[in-house]
Amino acid sequence: MAVYTEVSDDALAVFLADYAIGDLVAFRGIAEGVENSNFSLRTTGGDYILTLYEKRVDPADLPWFLGLMDHLAEHGITCPRPVHGRDGVALRQLCGRHAAITTFLPGVWPRRVRPEHCGPVGEALAALHLAGADYAPTRRNALGPEGWEPLLERSLRGASGVAPGLGAELVAALNRILAAWPQGLPVGHIHADLFPDNVFFLEGRLSGLIDFYFAATDILAYDLAVCLNAWCFEADLSLNVTRARALCRAYAAIRPLSAAERAALPVLCQGAAIRFALTRLYDWINTPAGALVTRKDPMEYVRRLRFHLEARDEHAYGL
Amino acid sequence: MAVYTEVSDDALAVFLADYAIGDLVAFRGIAEGVENSNFSLRTTGGDYILTLYEKRVDPADLPWFLGLMDHLAEHGITCPRPVHGRDGVALRQLCGRHAAITTFLPGVWPRRVRPEHCGPVGEALAALHLAGADYAPTRRNALGPEGWEPLLERSLRGASGVAPGLGAELVAALNRILAAWPQGLPVGHIHADLFPDNVFFLEGRLSGLIDFYFAATDILAYDLAVCLNAWCFEADLSLNVTRARALCRAYAAIRPLSAAERAALPVLCQGAAIRFALTRLYDWINTPAGALVTRKDPMEYVRRLRFHLEARDEHAYGL
Repeated sequence: MAVYTEVSDDALAVFLADYAIGDLVAFRGIAEGVENSNFSLRTTGGDYILTLYEKRVDPADLPWFLGLMDHLAEHGITCPRPVHGRDGVALRQLCGRHAAITTFLPGVWPRRVRPEHCGPVGEALAALHLAGADYAPTRRNALGPEGWEPLLERSLRGASGVAPGLGAELVAALNRILAAWPQGLPVGHIHADLFPDNVFFLEGRLSGLIDFYFAATDILAYDLAVCLNAWCFEADLSLNVTRARALCRAYAAIRPLSAAERAALPVLCQGAAIRFALTRLYDWINTPAGALVTRKDPMEYVRRLRFHLEARDEHAYGL
Repeated sequence: MAVYTEVSDDALAVFLADYAIGDLVAFRGIAEGVENSNFSLRTTGGDYILTLYEKRVDPADLPWFLGLMDHLAEHGITCPRPVHGRDGVALRQLCGRHAAITTFLPGVWPRRVRPEHCGPVGEALAALHLAGADYAPTRRNALGPEGWEPLLERSLRGASGVAPGLGAELVAALNRILAAWPQGLPVGHIHADLFPDNVFFLEGRLSGLIDFYFAATDILAYDLAVCLNAWCFEADLSLNVTRARALCRAYAAIRPLSAAERAALPVLCQGAAIRFALTRLYDWINTPAGALVTRKDPMEYVRRLRFHLEARDEHAYGL
């Protein structure tokens, strides 16, 4: 769930007066999302999403995120589009938070992933990478390889409470991953969090991508590795090769993967797995009792990590 | 927040096939509500709310609730209307839960109550009481006076952890309330939970009432007492007499209050305050750490209770 900030009627009315989007019709908190407060906003002009950016988002990054969404939408990607106020400004203040209105996207995110979802996700990811190519500003990936060691250090004390020996296992895995981390692969703007709850489908077709607040400038094939982790494992945490193949082939049909990118897939997948294992572990240890957020089990990504550490080459993923 | 049950795409598709409301366009969890899982559902036919009834609701009561909503909607009350399937059935099963689709009501609930809200709430409550008069089935109020003693007993062990002496204070107050509980006042169907988050406003007018899942057959003026507690106290828990007067006068203009009902207001308000103090206390003590629900402070209603115990007569409420 995610409504951390209550918006009073008066504050909302004042805020909306800065936009030319019609009169307020309905306003409800949205349960999805864990980083920001999201509201479904209906006006006489249509449907929108109002987002209040909470503490995890660095305000300095917000213009980059909103600019990327504007750019992608202009280049044919179906993603939420920032709505600019009467003064042209998209990023404003509401209830002491930075806030923005974006367009509403129809569609439903798949609660149960099927192989048929994975091809469209691969295509959409590749299209996103191509469309982002001429967005000039860059953003360092705070949750990329440089960020993993500090994150692990801050979680080590509680790791053994999650699983015996987990701290030592993650230290060893991280050393191995960082030593093997590929250099010189094509870089661009990546979504970095394209999980099923960020992809909408409608009548069997992908209808939109949302939640660009982890986007950054990093290795493009790493984004594919994130999707392999997010979309291609069964509930028992075995890899579904049919899904992996569908994802990678569809991606490569739009943006061909070089031999170097293919060869790097195992370590990129290891990196993606440890990134989510580490943030989940950190949250697991540091989420206060009674918090509004459901903690996600870090072991789900530790087990993916173990799989990827065993993968000899890209053939493990059906390529 | 409230999404306790995830609905898979397949299950949703099968479920919707039983309705003639068009094709799925969007489906999102709603953050509001603490008892059930609620989703905003858009189809090519319009907007709806899908509710999955969770453990707190007795399935045996659901036909009564849905029947009441149907009845009230037919009698001019703007409330969610159960949508009946192709077979005429409104109450179905989804993901192992009882589930129903209701119509979507435009409007926004007031995050900050102003005196101007209270008149319309009083009018709407009285209209609800009149409209319910010829709905024949009845429902015992499980959270009425008979339910308070068992609820207190199950919370006594943890009460002193919330505030020193709280258990003894509540035992004494409850004895006094039950001894003075009025007999023979007019009875009917009451909403029993008409808090600000269950009342929508649009352009300054009351646009609808929602969440009838605490409704029951009980003393009508007790419902007004619930509203006095819910709408008429300041953040510092002092009574705002302007709001109380607006609420009661508007109510009485539609459904006149007898002298006996007026005289009973202090004890009815005491009862309403202890009812919410007791359920909040129970939840406070019994909500597991890390649960999705924000616990609400029972002391907010203990302090209202203290106010009502001091009230000499109905003049304390500006009548």
